Amino acid sequence: MQALLEAVARGEVSSEAALERLARLPFVDTPNARVDTHRALRAGLPEVVFAPGKTAGQVVEIVRVLREAGQPVLATRVEPALAEQVRGSLPEGEYDPEARVLWFGPAEVPILGKGSITVVCAGTADLPVAREAAAVARRFGNKVELLVDVGVAGLHRLLASDETLRSARVLIAVAGMEGALPSVVGGLVDKPVIAVPTSVGYGASFGGIAALLGMLTSCASNVTVVNIDNGFGAAYVATLINRL
Amino acid sequence: MQALLEAVARGEVSSEAALERLARLPFVDTPNARVDTHRALRAGLPEVVFAPGKTAGQVVEIVRVLREAGQPVLATRVEPALAEQVRGSLPEGEYDPEARVLWFGPAEVPILGKGSITVVCAGTADLPVAREAAAVARRFGNKVELLVDVGVAGLHRLLASDETLRSARVLIAVAGMEGALPSVVGGLVDKPVIAVPTSVGYGASFGGIAALLGMLTSCASNVTVVNIDNGFGAAYVATLINRL
Amino acid sequence: MQALLEAVARGEVSSEAALERLARLPFVDTPNARVDTHRALRAGLPEVVFAPGKTAGQVVEIVRVLREAGQPVLATRVEPALAEQVRGSLPEGEYDPEARVLWFGPAEVPILGKGSITVVCAGTADLPVAREAAAVARRFGNKVELLVDVGVAGLHRLLASDETLRSARVLIAVAGMEGALPSVVGGLVDKPVIAVPTSVGYGASFGGIAALLGMLTSCASNVTVVNIDNGFGAAYVATLINRL
Amino acid sequence: MQALLEAVARGEVSSEAALERLARLPFVDTPNARVDTHRALRAGLPEVVFAPGKTAGQVVEIVRVLREAGQPVLATRVEPALAEQVRGSLPEGEYDPEARVLWFGPAEVPILGKGSITVVCAGTADLPVAREAAAVARRFGNKVELLVDVGVAGLHRLLASDETLRSARVLIAVAGMEGALPSVVGGLVDKPVIAVPTSVGYGASFGGIAALLGMLTSCASNVTVVNIDNGFGAAYVATLINRL
Amino acid sequence: MQALLEAVARGEVSSEAALERLARLPFVDTPNARVDTHRALRAGLPEVVFAPGKTAGQVVEIVRVLREAGQPVLATRVEPALAEQVRGSLPEGEYDPEARVLWFGPAEVPILGKGSITVVCAGTADLPVAREAAAVARRFGNKVELLVDVGVAGLHRLLASDETLRSARVLIAVAGMEGALPSVVGGLVDKPVIAVPTSVGYGASFGGIAALLGMLTSCASNVTVVNIDNGFGAAYVATLINRL
Amino acid sequence: MQALLEAVARGEVSSEAALERLARLPFVDTPNARVDTHRALRAGLPEVVFAPGKTAGQVVEIVRVLREAGQPVLATRVEPALAEQVRGSLPEGEYDPEARVLWFGPAEVPILGKGSITVVCAGTADLPVAREAAAVARRFGNKVELLVDVGVAGLHRLLASDETLRSARVLIAVAGMEGALPSVVGGLVDKPVIAVPTSVGYGASFGGIAALLGMLTSCASNVTVVNIDNGFGAAYVATLINRL
Amino acid sequence: MQALLEAVARGEVSSEAALERLARLPFVDTPNARVDTHRALRAGLPEVVFAPGKTAGQVVEIVRVLREAGQPVLATRVEPALAEQVRGSLPEGEYDPEARVLWFGPAEVPILGKGSITVVCAGTADLPVAREAAAVARRFGNKVELLVDVGVAGLHRLLASDETLRSARVLIAVAGMEGALPSVVGGLVDKPVIAVPTSVGYGASFGGIAALLGMLTSCASNVTVVNIDNGFGAAYVATLINRL
Amino acid sequence: MQALLEAVARGEVSSEAALERLARLPFVDTPNARVDTHRALRAGLPEVVFAPGKTAGQVVEIVRVLREAGQPVLATRVEPALAEQVRGSLPEGEYDPEARVLWFGPAEVPILGKGSITVVCAGTADLPVAREAAAVARRFGNKVELLVDVGVAGLHRLLASDETLRSARVLIAVAGMEGALPSVVGGLVDKPVIAVPTSVGYGASFGGIAALLGMLTSCASNVTVVNIDNGFGAAYVATLINRL
Repeated sequence: MQALLEAVARGEVSSEAALERLARLPFVDTPNARVDTHRALRAGLPEVVFAPGKTAGQVVEIVRVLREAGQPVLATRVEPALAEQVRGSLPEGEYDPEARVLWFGPAEVPILGKGSITVVCAGTADLPVAREAAAVARRFGNKVELLVDVGVAGLHRLLASDETLRSARVLIAVAGMEGALPSVVGGLVDKPVIAVPTSVGYGASFGGIAALLGMLTSCASNVTVVNIDNGFGAAYVATLINRL
Repeated sequence: MQALLEAVARGEVSSEAALERLARLPFVDTPNARVDTHRALRAGLPEVVFAPGKTAGQVVEIVRVLREAGQPVLATRVEPALAEQVRGSLPEGEYDPEARVLWFGPAEVPILGKGSITVVCAGTADLPVAREAAAVARRFGNKVELLVDVGVAGLHRLLASDETLRSARVLIAVAGMEGALPSVVGGLVDKPVIAVPTSVGYGASFGGIAALLGMLTSCASNVTVVNIDNGFGAAYVATLINRL
Repeated sequence: MQALLEAVARGEVSSEAALERLARLPFVDTPNARVDTHRALRAGLPEVVFAPGKTAGQVVEIVRVLREAGQPVLATRVEPALAEQVRGSLPEGEYDPEARVLWFGPAEVPILGKGSITVVCAGTADLPVAREAAAVARRFGNKVELLVDVGVAGLHRLLASDETLRSARVLIAVAGMEGALPSVVGGLVDKPVIAVPTSVGYGASFGGIAALLGMLTSCASNVTVVNIDNGFGAAYVATLINRL
Repeated sequence: MQALLEAVARGEVSSEAALERLARLPFVDTPNARVDTHRALRAGLPEVVFAPGKTAGQVVEIVRVLREAGQPVLATRVEPALAEQVRGSLPEGEYDPEARVLWFGPAEVPILGKGSITVVCAGTADLPVAREAAAVARRFGNKVELLVDVGVAGLHRLLASDETLRSARVLIAVAGMEGALPSVVGGLVDKPVIAVPTSVGYGASFGGIAALLGMLTSCASNVTVVNIDNGFGAAYVATLINRL
Repeated sequence: MQALLEAVARGEVSSEAALERLARLPFVDTPNARVDTHRALRAGLPEVVFAPGKTAGQVVEIVRVLREAGQPVLATRVEPALAEQVRGSLPEGEYDPEARVLWFGPAEVPILGKGSITVVCAGTADLPVAREAAAVARRFGNKVELLVDVGVAGLHRLLASDETLRSARVLIAVAGMEGALPSVVGGLVDKPVIAVPTSVGYGASFGGIAALLGMLTSCASNVTVVNIDNGFGAAYVATLINRL
Repeated sequence: MQALLEAVARGEVSSEAALERLARLPFVDTPNARVDTHRALRAGLPEVVFAPGKTAGQVVEIVRVLREAGQPVLATRVEPALAEQVRGSLPEGEYDPEARVLWFGPAEVPILGKGSITVVCAGTADLPVAREAAAVARRFGNKVELLVDVGVAGLHRLLASDETLRSARVLIAVAGMEGALPSVVGGLVDKPVIAVPTSVGYGASFGGIAALLGMLTSCASNVTVVNIDNGFGAAYVATLINRL
Repeated sequence: MQALLEAVARGEVSSEAALERLARLPFVDTPNARVDTHRALRAGLPEVVFAPGKTAGQVVEIVRVLREAGQPVLATRVEPALAEQVRGSLPEGEYDPEARVLWFGPAEVPILGKGSITVVCAGTADLPVAREAAAVARRFGNKVELLVDVGVAGLHRLLASDETLRSARVLIAVAGMEGALPSVVGGLVDKPVIAVPTSVGYGASFGGIAALLGMLTSCASNVTVVNIDNGFGAAYVATLINRL
Repeated sequence: MQALLEAVARGEVSSEAALERLARLPFVDTPNARVDTHRALRAGLPEVVFAPGKTAGQVVEIVRVLREAGQPVLATRVEPALAEQVRGSLPEGEYDPEARVLWFGPAEVPILGKGSITVVCAGTADLPVAREAAAVARRFGNKVELLVDVGVAGLHRLLASDETLRSARVLIAVAGMEGALPSVVGGLVDKPVIAVPTSVGYGASFGGIAALLGMLTSCASNVTVVNIDNGFGAAYVATLINRL
């Protein structure tokens, strides 16, 4: 902003144009969305499209604008049917059905993270969220380890992976039901643990509320929490931390 | 009931008297309560008085009726001031301020439980509830072990007591905040674990709701749950199980 | 664990191998899950597969690993369509559509429980949960009685079964709506009562919350509670108690 | 209203006056409240003042206006200190500390109800609400029976009073905790049962929510519900029914 | 019960037989339910079958048992498809699709209620619940008036029906959204008003919670409340009141 | 009302007729609804039909009655299938599928609002609600601006439209998830801001509760709130304000 | 902002200074708060200090800064003890104990609102909130009417004030318990109604939730809602509307 | 652990001793707590004592054990009265009343964090939580900036501190009420933002729930959340991140 103001001061840019540019520059208007083309500049990350509620046409439109701006794009929560439709128009998209992500960008993403991110997952039913977190973290340029089915009622399984836990620079702990995994993982490591409650469960799990409350009240001090099922958000923050 | 009906059939008891006895026998009317004098007969346990909301006078009245019927009495959730007032009238009462129980009965209770009950407690703040559970279980004739401050974020503390956990016939796990302790304990033993959520915590613990939901959705199948802060109820059920 | 450490001390096992075995022994990795093959050893019970959210392929895979390890397997919450698919690959499975359980093991399970378990069910709509509890308890080696449609608004029906209630060593009380059945049953017996709230009901039953809260706040002290619709969990704990 | 319109039509009353009278007649303005002086006319009942949140001065002011209009007045939820203050100014008030009601009217209220109202109360802690209901019903001209401490976990106590239950024309069932009493009482009688949840309890009773939900989802069809702790409202409706 | 005991005392009935009859008499066992054949005796009302969750076969089975015992039967919440199936086996059933009730009994039900019941309904979307209440009340032998679309934001519509409101002996007020109708109706009459919250609404109506809370906290003292959408329960209680 | 009373006083209208007219005049009875034909008179606005829960037949019936009374009609929340059915009978209806409104009235609505209404929308997923608000406001005779995709995490997009915000006489801010947009918009303008939470989101958005609470607790004092997804209500109030 | 940019373009202001002024100008730093001195400029209203949680010293500090900047100040939710302390330092403050507001400014505030604001209040217990709304609206330069104790269960009281309701340009409806008043008031007028739920009530009013939900789901379309007990916010918005 | 096992393999440590040491080493038993003396070793941070619910005696006891083990200790949420009592026994404690922390350790803590942590605080009422976060972060060896009173309804105040925001390596955003601050801050920076909801607010803020939900559903992807009022936890995680 200061650069622009200095240009105004030097008379190189009129004040109207400055206002215009300040406001209009960082996004492109499409009929349904102001597509933000500067996030990659700002954060050095691909643009992300959250697919639920969007038609294949809308996803294609947004991806095209961003690809034309030279950016890689990652679409999340993409169900197989939608993926197929989008790839009908944009066949270069690479689809990972287990993580439900659709990738438009280089096949090999350079590793920019300084250490590795370990994603720990309590039960098999939590796997889609854990896989989303892992896939996003990989596409964001991180080395990623994924540990599955290591719930707290079977500690031996978790302790067997103690080394993988301790070698991570940041950890993501994914769990539904009572959501106790982050507390136990948090007690085993001295690194930041990002907890992701999942909507997995029935009855008193109330669609993830039990896990969410459990994680927020964790007795391990190195735990922070993201929204229920928000594997993407956990990977995003883990990436930011891993680049520090 | 059949015995009474047979007496009626033999003409030894009139039908009106039978009806009367069926209904009136097992309790004594005091001005404020129908005091149940037959629970000890039925369950072989002392009568229990839940103190909150009762005046010292009401507690004294109920204890007297029960003591006159020859029963030991245990009052729970007795704050020190109330204990002092009650003991003004009934000096034989023995008060345990940490467990907040007031006991009227033999100094030594015979051990009737077949094994031992282990009470596990996550944090120091959960101690009053855990001590209530332990004190009640002892007065109900059980051998009791109490493990304190063994939260899941410091697994080494819990694992250090592994033997005490495994030697119990029934376990009581007391925890506030995220309430993950019963899941971890449940995974370490193959005995029934009775989980007691406590109202300890702040913010998203919502007065024990987080712990309660966490325990109800525990991934350990050997866990059942009682009401928030209900150390007494856990000890009661543990006693019934330990006498089987 | 001590046995292993002693072997290390005697030089029979290297420390690396000990660590490896400590961690890897009790489970088998399949692509989607760490299948726990030691629970039967630990608890003397069949392994249980919770079916919801699993594909027929995943169920088959897990059952195969466990059957190869010589264990009986019980799959719960198996809808008829899934049962048919799984039995396409594993025809020896025995399916009980009312209880929604699929059994892989001996046709006759030896009775290991010391007494009988009585499952009491408030309304016809609660039957699937009650039948799950009864079927699981039977496959876990217990003698089981099932009483149905004995809600508290028709006490005569419940009182007519008084003998069946009193003869049980452990009881399971299943109810939706206001969930009052465990309180009434708990008052009639001096044995542990495991309460199962069901999601049956409408309006203010809020998918089982009314029943759950009612059971947690039961005025009968011999009641503990499991998650909404968790007939399996109730049977599991009842089995543990019945073997004591 | 038609009478007034006819008077207008006959020219006896001007249209402005009619409007004025329509609107102003049935209440008297005091500085803090429009005191309704016509409810007694409409419903044949004393005016009722809900005391919480009102100063002694405000209560005195309202009672005076109503007494000057010749009406009996009943103040509810009057704590002892407030009662004393009000009776400093209005010594004719008769105070019942257990029911927390303050009565201004004839010592003997004529019985206008056609049958008797039975108030049933689950525990001693629910007594203040039950006594409020009973005292209000008596001051509203009903014959009232009060049964106390007849919780559902001790059915024999309740069944012992079966005759009192069946002889009532309307019943009021007061309970906290799981609130199961109205369901059981409702199953024993074929008369309307008004259920009053109380805020008695701890933990998962959530200040009366458990009891409220339990009563709303009662499996007995003859149960309707009023607000938590609303003994007055139950007595009011029971009175209306008992006069039909 | 006393009659039976006297027969025992006279030796006409053995004690075992007495116990047997006490317990077994009032219901008939079918494979899926203990069908209660004595409610009609007790309350003088048809037996009612709540259809949701029951198959056509189950409904037919229960209706047959009850019809053979000579009782009229009313099935509620019967969707058209189910009605058609049931009437395939039991063509004498009379179906009212707007009220979703299916009737097995005399075409003309004798009027046993002493006055009339007025059902008031706030919006067109609440009509199914109001019509259920009206249909049930009619089949239970009451004269019924139904006022529709008289929400509180258009008071003139409600006031236009003032006479119908005042002429009722009991009223049922059905409303979703904010549920204010019972308060306004309650202020216009001096008779009992049974409030039925409906699940109609969106957003902050939370499936009827807003209406339910509004009705429970009504400032009109003559209002009691039943469960969300429970038109049947309101009609049941209104019938009991109307027969007093 | 006074006019009518004066006519009665002059003998021109009988009192019965006056009562009749007072009550019956402002609505027309159809089989399913009392259609209110006077709202347009009262408020100068088209009548509005809320479509959900209504059949095509019911919508047609209501629209016909109102059109015959000479009023324009706006149906909201009309899904495409319903729109097609209604237009089969009433082809003059103009359908806007993005806003889901169906309009019966003049193609050009005269502008009656004194200034313009700006509708601000946080995300693309909130668009249907924002478009409903904009469409309703236009059909109600207002000049409307619509700003989309201006969430608070990309302030530059919002600030770029600062002028459009400041030029409005009333604003409507539509947002799901955390619902922070009205606070930020409210801080940028000194005009009334009507906040509309949407049910857009997942996990802890709880169907719009997060946004609703956020808007109710907004730190901007010029914000008021309507129900979740209630774009229509926001437009209605904005119209009233814009005509002042 | 454009003015400043033009000054930069003309060289009159350096870019650093521009940035500095853009950011620093509109507030003054005190040790505990950035006091905003430009709100009065922006909105033409006094600055408002929300007192709860602030010490007398903090209130005095903030008021002094603002008074030195020449602005009138209104402190809200000021309890008598705090008012006395603040007036010890700032004796020119004028305190209204019923509305709990403390005013620093001209004794007579010029009327800037174009019409009058009517504040309607359901019960005497809601008066403090209604009086806050009225006092704030008066200090903000509006003509204000206050109607008290006009709950919906006594419609005649409300209808008696019909003229006062209809003559207002904006209305504020204050109610606790079921919060039905705004719906009824909204149906009687064609002006914007701002609804204020109060925390008055007990039991199922849940500290204002019942009233809040009732108002959000109001069937009157001209109702918007502010936070529970937020009389100030309602007056603020009403003022903005009344100046349009 | 491997080191210990190798010592066992070399015969230097017996297996019993190994087990003993594994379990007992990292904590010291005091009567009320197992004081963990190894956290500092593990994480390089002072031990922290959460004061609420602890007596001065308990705090003194724990601090002594830890100080004797050579560790610095930080007590949080220490009210002034408790601080005074503790400092009576341990006068070297340094108390910060605004942050409510009590410090036992070197006056100057060496800076170990690689960058600075910026704590941003929405309102003056949120200050205690923000100051706790800042004080803890400083005592944990970080350079800390604190920005106060920069709520989202006054964006200019926040934007004025843009540089401070952008220069941080990690940010902590503290806000009550609608909790929108982290979303706006998150949009301005590309670093991790730890959001702390506070219990500040009234009405629909529900003790911090509104802020908590708002932060969990933030549209800014770089936001994670800790428990309500958990300034300590935010500082702890920020410290871990800042040391990476």
